[in-house]
Amino acid sequence: MTLIGVINPNTSRAMTSAIGRTAREVAGPGVRVLAVTSSMGPASIESHYDEALAVPGLLAAVRDGELAGADGHVIACFGDPGLAAARESATGPGVGIAEAAMHMATYLGRSFSVVTTLSRTVGHALDLARDYGFARACAGVHACDIPVLDLESADARASIAKACAAAQDSDSCDVIVLGCAGMPDLAASISAELGIPVVDGVAAAVKTVESLVALGLRTSKGDEYAAPPAKPVSGLLSGFTLGIP
Amino acid sequence: MTLIGVINPNTSRAMTSAIGRTAREVAGPGVRVLAVTSSMGPASIESHYDEALAVPGLLAAVRDGELAGADGHVIACFGDPGLAAARESATGPGVGIAEAAMHMATYLGRSFSVVTTLSRTVGHALDLARDYGFARACAGVHACDIPVLDLESADARASIAKACAAAQDSDSCDVIVLGCAGMPDLAASISAELGIPVVDGVAAAVKTVESLVALGLRTSKGDEYAAPPAKPVSGLLSGFTLGIP
Amino acid sequence: MTLIGVINPNTSRAMTSAIGRTAREVAGPGVRVLAVTSSMGPASIESHYDEALAVPGLLAAVRDGELAGADGHVIACFGDPGLAAARESATGPGVGIAEAAMHMATYLGRSFSVVTTLSRTVGHALDLARDYGFARACAGVHACDIPVLDLESADARASIAKACAAAQDSDSCDVIVLGCAGMPDLAASISAELGIPVVDGVAAAVKTVESLVALGLRTSKGDEYAAPPAKPVSGLLSGFTLGIP
Amino acid sequence: MTLIGVINPNTSRAMTSAIGRTAREVAGPGVRVLAVTSSMGPASIESHYDEALAVPGLLAAVRDGELAGADGHVIACFGDPGLAAARESATGPGVGIAEAAMHMATYLGRSFSVVTTLSRTVGHALDLARDYGFARACAGVHACDIPVLDLESADARASIAKACAAAQDSDSCDVIVLGCAGMPDLAASISAELGIPVVDGVAAAVKTVESLVALGLRTSKGDEYAAPPAKPVSGLLSGFTLGIP
Amino acid sequence: MTLIGVINPNTSRAMTSAIGRTAREVAGPGVRVLAVTSSMGPASIESHYDEALAVPGLLAAVRDGELAGADGHVIACFGDPGLAAARESATGPGVGIAEAAMHMATYLGRSFSVVTTLSRTVGHALDLARDYGFARACAGVHACDIPVLDLESADARASIAKACAAAQDSDSCDVIVLGCAGMPDLAASISAELGIPVVDGVAAAVKTVESLVALGLRTSKGDEYAAPPAKPVSGLLSGFTLGIP
Amino acid sequence: MTLIGVINPNTSRAMTSAIGRTAREVAGPGVRVLAVTSSMGPASIESHYDEALAVPGLLAAVRDGELAGADGHVIACFGDPGLAAARESATGPGVGIAEAAMHMATYLGRSFSVVTTLSRTVGHALDLARDYGFARACAGVHACDIPVLDLESADARASIAKACAAAQDSDSCDVIVLGCAGMPDLAASISAELGIPVVDGVAAAVKTVESLVALGLRTSKGDEYAAPPAKPVSGLLSGFTLGIP
Repeated sequence: MTLIGVINPNTSRAMTSAIGRTAREVAGPGVRVLAVTSSMGPASIESHYDEALAVPGLLAAVRDGELAGADGHVIACFGDPGLAAARESATGPGVGIAEAAMHMATYLGRSFSVVTTLSRTVGHALDLARDYGFARACAGVHACDIPVLDLESADARASIAKACAAAQDSDSCDVIVLGCAGMPDLAASISAELGIPVVDGVAAAVKTVESLVALGLRTSKGDEYAAPPAKPVSGLLSGFTLGIP
Repeated sequence: MTLIGVINPNTSRAMTSAIGRTAREVAGPGVRVLAVTSSMGPASIESHYDEALAVPGLLAAVRDGELAGADGHVIACFGDPGLAAARESATGPGVGIAEAAMHMATYLGRSFSVVTTLSRTVGHALDLARDYGFARACAGVHACDIPVLDLESADARASIAKACAAAQDSDSCDVIVLGCAGMPDLAASISAELGIPVVDGVAAAVKTVESLVALGLRTSKGDEYAAPPAKPVSGLLSGFTLGIP
Repeated sequence: MTLIGVINPNTSRAMTSAIGRTAREVAGPGVRVLAVTSSMGPASIESHYDEALAVPGLLAAVRDGELAGADGHVIACFGDPGLAAARESATGPGVGIAEAAMHMATYLGRSFSVVTTLSRTVGHALDLARDYGFARACAGVHACDIPVLDLESADARASIAKACAAAQDSDSCDVIVLGCAGMPDLAASISAELGIPVVDGVAAAVKTVESLVALGLRTSKGDEYAAPPAKPVSGLLSGFTLGIP
Repeated sequence: MTLIGVINPNTSRAMTSAIGRTAREVAGPGVRVLAVTSSMGPASIESHYDEALAVPGLLAAVRDGELAGADGHVIACFGDPGLAAARESATGPGVGIAEAAMHMATYLGRSFSVVTTLSRTVGHALDLARDYGFARACAGVHACDIPVLDLESADARASIAKACAAAQDSDSCDVIVLGCAGMPDLAASISAELGIPVVDGVAAAVKTVESLVALGLRTSKGDEYAAPPAKPVSGLLSGFTLGIP
Repeated sequence: MTLIGVINPNTSRAMTSAIGRTAREVAGPGVRVLAVTSSMGPASIESHYDEALAVPGLLAAVRDGELAGADGHVIACFGDPGLAAARESATGPGVGIAEAAMHMATYLGRSFSVVTTLSRTVGHALDLARDYGFARACAGVHACDIPVLDLESADARASIAKACAAAQDSDSCDVIVLGCAGMPDLAASISAELGIPVVDGVAAAVKTVESLVALGLRTSKGDEYAAPPAKPVSGLLSGFTLGIP
Repeated sequence: MTLIGVINPNTSRAMTSAIGRTAREVAGPGVRVLAVTSSMGPASIESHYDEALAVPGLLAAVRDGELAGADGHVIACFGDPGLAAARESATGPGVGIAEAAMHMATYLGRSFSVVTTLSRTVGHALDLARDYGFARACAGVHACDIPVLDLESADARASIAKACAAAQDSDSCDVIVLGCAGMPDLAASISAELGIPVVDGVAAAVKTVESLVALGLRTSKGDEYAAPPAKPVSGLLSGFTLGIP
């Protein structure tokens, strides 16, 4: 039995249930999904500032997942917040949904385009593509100008589909990466419409963690990602400890 | 039921059985592995010339796999020969073992080093790393100077282990990628010895194809990877056709 | 009168006083320095995890600096934690000490090497060099293997000097960047010894903010760095708000 | 007397005679051209799959050229198929027409654009530009959407000229590289029309091989490009040997 | 007292007075500006050829500045002509206005666009951006098609403003860099109009030299930028010597 | 009849005669070489400063060559000084010897190393490699620490050979590029000793210009490299004009 912790670092329960549903749908036989909402941080992550405030809560959820016996962790927010710190904190693998979606996309064609939420996050998505090695593979990042918390509305779905079609048109991309967490049905319908693959990050990340766990592959603890040494923490976060023996 | 074709483009049956064993060990529930030896080409692939001669046989094996109902294909030679042509030929996803191993390695740390067979193949492995986006993540490629067909000997195993240790030492890498097909037990023992993850390409590629198939993701057929148009072929290969409706 | 907020995101007052002293020494006529210790976070920042926990406190200090009328902000920790979020939060310019030191170094020669604290932070310093555009200019990053809180000891100073000499030797660099906050006297003595410039980040960042303020240049608020929209924050950080009108 | 083998890896004799004519027109005094059609492979090369099937025939032609005393070889297909394998197989230099055209173009201006045949080959041409070092110099690759075997028609010539003018307009390029083999008269007329240089690959490659031979420069045989070791080859290609003493 | 030599390598006195005015406006307390016109070279620099002819005069002005006791030097032409040679010649720091403007721009946002004079200089500005590390940060370079000597006209100012607005529109840049020397009032008015920062190179370079001098940072003299060895010079330039003890 | 101007921008006649001899040896039938010494500038070029002072004399020689009917020009100094300005000034092609040697080297193997004169010029050679697209192909640049004017001594020849052997050893390069003008006999003897190709820049550049002229290819005059507009020049260089109708 494999247990995968899927963490929504947006502190919005509605999103978590959609994310959890997607994760469970794609999880293989013998894989259990523990979908949790971060208990600390902004309701939605749409800026560098939001991301900074969300990360301590995310790390608390990683710690809780470790204590619950999780074999690996998915960070279910397209900016992959706190990924390096999560890798330090966890013993099993940790994977971000942007990371997994971009990796999967490169198996399917020469280039992918990303459709994300607000234009202010476009630069961050480009940074991720570059950091993961996909500066060339990423043909473009496009915003559909919908706030994260409005993504589930019917209007939002139409806007996203429209932005995907526009991206295919302007970028001549082979693949679309959906920069919104947990919309695999939308991915399927847009793929059918555009005639090219559309990758959902939550689904991609769950299968990636599942594969890594199945192969016994864990984060290298040789140097940079070794468990961080315990040390005093001041202020509001003073009770905050890794709590992993 | 998912069927994954695992193709050994070296025309050496002994290697195929080791590769098939590895593939079956890591394949998930409900996944069947069809491990085949290419029927055409050099006994082992150790040069650009060998690779060129191996690719038509590999493509014939992809065609045969498609006819047998394979949902996806693994190219089980570390140079990922014929990968783009295989993607054009197949309807399901096609994944190379160097490609899959390098992708998996980047989830486990900042950098990986590759240990491959002969020094004349080092440049090609560096090209692959760069083509896949991992110019920065790839900390080095090292040859253990063992011909492909000698890889199973006890001496070879010791030499590979030694080359891995040397790579860790010189490159300060977080992860080792084994540039030899189907040696997962060796990967495990070297990992235990060095204290860092060691990735076997066959295992990585099987799980990657399995994941892509599970998510319904196939090669984009929009333009570059559309099925190649049928056309007359002359000479020795004149009977050679894609044979896919 | 210009007011520059210099924030030590390590919650260690001793460091802050050394940093403040340096900042005041280099500040021009009419420039006042407000050196503050973050009130929240780990005692020292030596991992991605530490950095993640330090950023909310840093952002609180930026907010407090804004309320106190700061014209610009220096983030006085070599990893430049929270820089993008600080730029969103502040109205005046925000500059990290790694960023400023690297920029200044490129005016002084073709290449610089960085000497930092622990080896686990080397990768992060390389990321910063690359992110700022200095992948080519940065000839190497070297750890002196001294924890941040021990940097003031005499032994530490000798180890840093030795690591700088080794870096010059191995990298043939034109300039050394000191990856430790607020040691300008050490920079001067190492420079004299090695015969090449040595750049201290706190000094560099203070002059950079001073210049930007003098020229009336502030962070572009057109899109990515616009003030983050106010939204509910849950949990420990729930009282946390930007508080900027 | 210098003998240059010019190999058309498309198995279409009509193309070979145009290619041979161009090669002979530009060959210097004392240089003889041996233009041959590959005896094995697809009629035209327009996909990764076609290219894979064409390479064994190309290598047989290189071998035959070596036996006939060729001092160097030109691969007269814009994708430069089998170039690395040809370099291993031959004792003299081997040059591809895309490679030579791109190199020559960089002497003539800051940037060049490529006009090629079908849109599915655009990605491959971009890969070549990048592999040869011209990622920056290559301002764009454009398809004129004409199948290789139709290139000689009057309509095709008009379409190519139109695509060149569009490329100049959209890319502000200094030079056009014609991605079709052996059309030097077309190159001249387009150059006259657009007022910028237009480079024909066959002409460029013949002069490049001629120069390398004149300077006594041959492929380095130190490691990667050493003659491939003889080994058993199975199947249809089983009679296939390098045949070079 | 700090003395900064500001050299106009265009031999046009009218430009020098505008440049000197800007320099003095931004120079801090205790900083004196010595603005000089080069005594040798073309009236304006608008080609590689002009730049080549301008550099000896620029170097003579650096030498004269050194003899006059200058602590550092600004090269006040947007192509940064002769910068490396000036660094060799001078004991204090030397900074180009394109260099300083681009560095400052990167503190203010993710990307900047440059608005320069003639289209034939666009490539050179792109080269500078790339050489300084800002290939990614530079979102575009645009010409306003105004000769250097006409920049002061009212029409020119309107054209520049229009080109800046077009650049913001096409590049979605965060910052504009003005590629014309000494127009800080224009920078301010365009910034007000477009709502994003606009950086003037002369102002940026003066503050940069001022900061480097204040921090005691000088060009590294270890190898590449050591004073060039004296040697015989023939012809028109035969009296030309560095003249620095 | 083709006339190639070969310009030695070092004002040392002895070098010119060696360069001219090499150029004539490799020039094809019907190609005449006009080897000239620049009449203005330093005796040898070994710094950015030397290069800056040498370029006006070089451009005068290009102008004189144009008036003498030269069909193309070779700049016979390994730093390729004034190349862009020469391209603007000339109607036929202009080629630098570093440029031509590096291009030729890439046809012969995966990587080349450069052996140059003084260590202070290493950075400039790396810049050239990068500017020409060969950042990856260039495996290293090594100084033999011999001043340009001493290159002809027997000791110098031994030192260069030794530096080449060391470069092959440290860089595992496939090819050596000799960074000294006009030593083709030395190239041949080092190549024989090391067993890999050694490229002489003068020989490479003459053949390259010869090829470009034979193909009717000239510098694109569309924008950046159009003839520079005539304008007043002040001071010592005041009589300096392009003089080309």
